[in-house]
Amino acid sequence: MAELHLLSPRGFRAGAVYAGIKSKQTPDVGLLVCDRLANAAAVFTTNKVFAAPVKVGRENIAGGRLQAVVVNAGNANACTGKQGEKDARAMCDLAAKAVGCDASAVLPSSTGIIGHLLPMDKVRAGIAGASAALGNSEEHAHQFSAAILTTDLVRKAAASRVKIGKEFVTIAGVCKGSGMIGPRMGPPHATMLAYLTTDAKIASSKLQKLMNAIADESFNAVTVDDHTSTNDTAAIMASGFGAAIDSAKGLTAFGDALREVCQSLAYQIAADGEGATKVVKIIVSTAASVNDARLIARAIANSPLVKCAMHGNDPNWGRIVSAAGLCGAKYDPDKSVLKLQGTPVFRHGTPLKFDAEKVSRSLAAKEVVIDLTCGLGKHAATVWTCDLSKDYVTINADYHT
Amino acid sequence: MAELHLLSPRGFRAGAVYAGIKSKQTPDVGLLVCDRLANAAAVFTTNKVFAAPVKVGRENIAGGRLQAVVVNAGNANACTGKQGEKDARAMCDLAAKAVGCDASAVLPSSTGIIGHLLPMDKVRAGIAGASAALGNSEEHAHQFSAAILTTDLVRKAAASRVKIGKEFVTIAGVCKGSGMIGPRMGPPHATMLAYLTTDAKIASSKLQKLMNAIADESFNAVTVDDHTSTNDTAAIMASGFGAAIDSAKGLTAFGDALREVCQSLAYQIAADGEGATKVVKIIVSTAASVNDARLIARAIANSPLVKCAMHGNDPNWGRIVSAAGLCGAKYDPDKSVLKLQGTPVFRHGTPLKFDAEKVSRSLAAKEVVIDLTCGLGKHAATVWTCDLSKDYVTINADYHT
Repeated sequence: MAELHLLSPRGFRAGAVYAGIKSKQTPDVGLLVCDRLANAAAVFTTNKVFAAPVKVGRENIAGGRLQAVVVNAGNANACTGKQGEKDARAMCDLAAKAVGCDASAVLPSSTGIIGHLLPMDKVRAGIAGASAALGNSEEHAHQFSAAILTTDLVRKAAASRVKIGKEFVTIAGVCKGSGMIGPRMGPPHATMLAYLTTDAKIASSKLQKLMNAIADESFNAVTVDDHTSTNDTAAIMASGFGAAIDSAKGLTAFGDALREVCQSLAYQIAADGEGATKVVKIIVSTAASVNDARLIARAIANSPLVKCAMHGNDPNWGRIVSAAGLCGAKYDPDKSVLKLQGTPVFRHGTPLKFDAEKVSRSLAAKEVVIDLTCGLGKHAATVWTCDLSKDYVTINADYHT
Repeated sequence: MAELHLLSPRGFRAGAVYAGIKSKQTPDVGLLVCDRLANAAAVFTTNKVFAAPVKVGRENIAGGRLQAVVVNAGNANACTGKQGEKDARAMCDLAAKAVGCDASAVLPSSTGIIGHLLPMDKVRAGIAGASAALGNSEEHAHQFSAAILTTDLVRKAAASRVKIGKEFVTIAGVCKGSGMIGPRMGPPHATMLAYLTTDAKIASSKLQKLMNAIADESFNAVTVDDHTSTNDTAAIMASGFGAAIDSAKGLTAFGDALREVCQSLAYQIAADGEGATKVVKIIVSTAASVNDARLIARAIANSPLVKCAMHGNDPNWGRIVSAAGLCGAKYDPDKSVLKLQGTPVFRHGTPLKFDAEKVSRSLAAKEVVIDLTCGLGKHAATVWTCDLSKDYVTINADYHT
């Protein structure tokens, strides 16, 4: 299925251009358009400091319908006051005119630096250019996925095709995210950005319900720096040109495929985290509640001590167990077992003898698995993060506003 | 008052030796002894994974009396199961014999690597050596304060003398802490370690009440990596050889002096945070509640994006405001004002024009002040942290267990 891309679901086109907003000369204004008014759903950041496009996006998604997404990179349009809100609305107006839909059917997004007004001349030219460039080829999908990137090193995309009854439904998505990654998106609240397309025929209410649940198991389960952004947004449009999702079985199959796509995108964000050399996957199981499992997994993922140890291939498991104990979740070291890359290192309150050299070598992998069982219940959570390297400091200290 | 030190309060002696537990050849076993059974109070870590000496220390402080503290550096005696608990009790027994008190009057402490059994032969020899070395000179105070250090680069001490009625009372303290610093100490719960001495005559219950309150405004308000340790402990012994604290006025004066000493120690921990090049002081005011003020200040202090920006002298205030909005506290950017080193950069939802070059130069100081007013109430909190440098990564990734 390597050939599937954002525009594989029937009824979508995309276009992107470089409008001079980012310093790096790669596309920075993009349009994603559905051929008709799509059933849609979105989750947005829960940060109390949210960007102007998030405010406008929440209004526009309220009716469960979207026909287009307009996005710029290089400027977040956050903390920009009343002018920022006007600019976000102007982006919708311009996109709506270019696409031929109502402005309220446009979801605006911005990502980049906080606290600077959008250069609207460039945005205007960019939207016109992106509109002129619309098409549905794989190259168009690539251009759009490039237009949402900031400090990301690679484009991020995933797709899945699933049989519903006798028909196939395609789900695809692109996302961005490398720094300021600690999404806590709520309904309809989520600077990671993710845009999903599907040709399924599915009600907005069902889409929204799926997005709420799946966000917690995908985008909200990835953290680079635990810094929930002002602009996080994940949105899906369903063109309805494909199979109808009207049975419970169909909904489950569709939901599973959507989760797969979202988890793949989330994983790609962790892998491209600022300065990352590896993905660290934290699996917490037999916790007393799902919330406890998530709290523990997040506390481990966000500990700079754990992240540095993983960077240095150091099986310093005391940092992991103590992170589990500090987060407020129910946790008892005497009932817990910790494995690093499959090797048990701590069990029921007591350190285990293990070959530290061998475990250290096993940590020198592109993916490290930290597996913690709590022995307190039947709940589990998985969180993806990356290691903490000197490059992270370079990127975030030497980069100047 | 430069001459005041840990043993300036009447009735205390200390001793320390190098017993071979740390790799660095500086003292690693210390004894702090009161000439008589002292009224005492302590706060300990709230981490659900707490070290064996914390367990024993909680038991021993229960009666509000202590005569000695025995401490080793280089090994935390945490996650060490039943043997670890036996070893912590053995430390108390050995110290008690050396000092001539009951084992239950000894507070044991350990700091260092997690998950390794204490080398008891070395600990035994160390306690004997420290006991033989007991004395009350400034050099003895220095030796003890060195014996509690791990990755710390400098010794940390503070003292204050206050007139109560017609008499003077002296309060002094030493502490350690550089990494795994995010204390959340509770009564009687707090790897930072802090030991305080005073010659005041004061009831244990009053001491404990003061320590509970003051810990929140000092040790619990410092964070390097937000990683609450398994071993955090702050304890005070009052010898009673000085003035009695029996009036409300006297208690206030004593509390103010104790707060001053504890805040000085906390500040020194931030300044010596792993890899730190500067202290970052975050003052949050006019918040809706004290808890909200603390949550916001901590969220700013713990954001790696903020810490890297401060390291790079970058006035990237969007990271600060967005940290305030992500922590769950009541916060409204439209009512908030942010100053960096005294320069307003954001007011009531809108970015302010400022000389970025000039502010950047002002951030290149040994102390940076981030001042955020919330405009929502009358509550305030101050948190101390440090910047995040490449040295932090070196220390924590290249250091191997």
